[in-house]
Amino acid sequence: MNKKNDTEVLINNKRYVLCGYESSEYLHKIANYINEKYQEFRGKESFSHLEPDMRHTLMEINLADDYFRAQNKVKELQDDNERKSKDMFELKHEMIAAQTKVEELSKELQSLKFEYNEAQKKIIRLETEIEERSKKV
Amino acid sequence: MNKKNDTEVLINNKRYVLCGYESSEYLHKIANYINEKYQEFRGKESFSHLEPDMRHTLMEINLADDYFRAQNKVKELQDDNERKSKDMFELKHEMIAAQTKVEELSKELQSLKFEYNEAQKKIIRLETEIEERSKKV
Repeated sequence: MNKKNDTEVLINNKRYVLCGYESSEYLHKIANYINEKYQEFRGKESFSHLEPDMRHTLMEINLADDYFRAQNKVKELQDDNERKSKDMFELKHEMIAAQTKVEELSKELQSLKFEYNEAQKKIIRLETEIEERSKKV
Repeated sequence: MNKKNDTEVLINNKRYVLCGYESSEYLHKIANYINEKYQEFRGKESFSHLEPDMRHTLMEINLADDYFRAQNKVKELQDDNERKSKDMFELKHEMIAAQTKVEELSKELQSLKFEYNEAQKKIIRLETEIEERSKKV
């Protein structure tokens, strides 16, 4: 979006040429948004009795209100995101602890299996010895 | 905020009484925001040459632009939030798998420790028997 565009739009039934770096599509989106609001306002009888200047101010207040509502939503989502990141961080730590525990237990189990096999071999040796001694007696 | 408030604000050097359910503080915040924009615009020479109607339209476009930028930020944060929730869900599953593995290994280890102790006892019994037989011979 480095190229300047001239975009002709219709806002509140007046033609304007907007010149900017924004895409023509975006500028039309803005114009449509403002026009929809004017359409909505014109449906209210009280609006038609207002001076043009007052109508514009009412529109400006309404647009600023939309902006602040969106900003509140941004704040809310940022807080939610921060909470999620914190939870994620804690969960990752717990995960590392659990994985370390799995590794420790696996090693302990492997070592004990070796010891157990050695004990089994020893039992066989001892039993064989007893058997042989029995034969000799 | 169920009580309607009448709030007097100054927008672009004109006095307005705004009536609504929003807090007086919020309505002043909106007025300040619009006034700051007008202040900024008045600093540009091109603005002073414009017809009042065109000035208002320029302000409306600017406010709508702020709104859309905030909305884009909302969308971005919502996507980020969704990604985080998905990651969190997967991580929780991995966590449950790791915890199950810890439980399984602990049980296996406990059982093997019992078997190993039994084997040790048997070795002692067999060694004792061999010792006693040696004494008899």
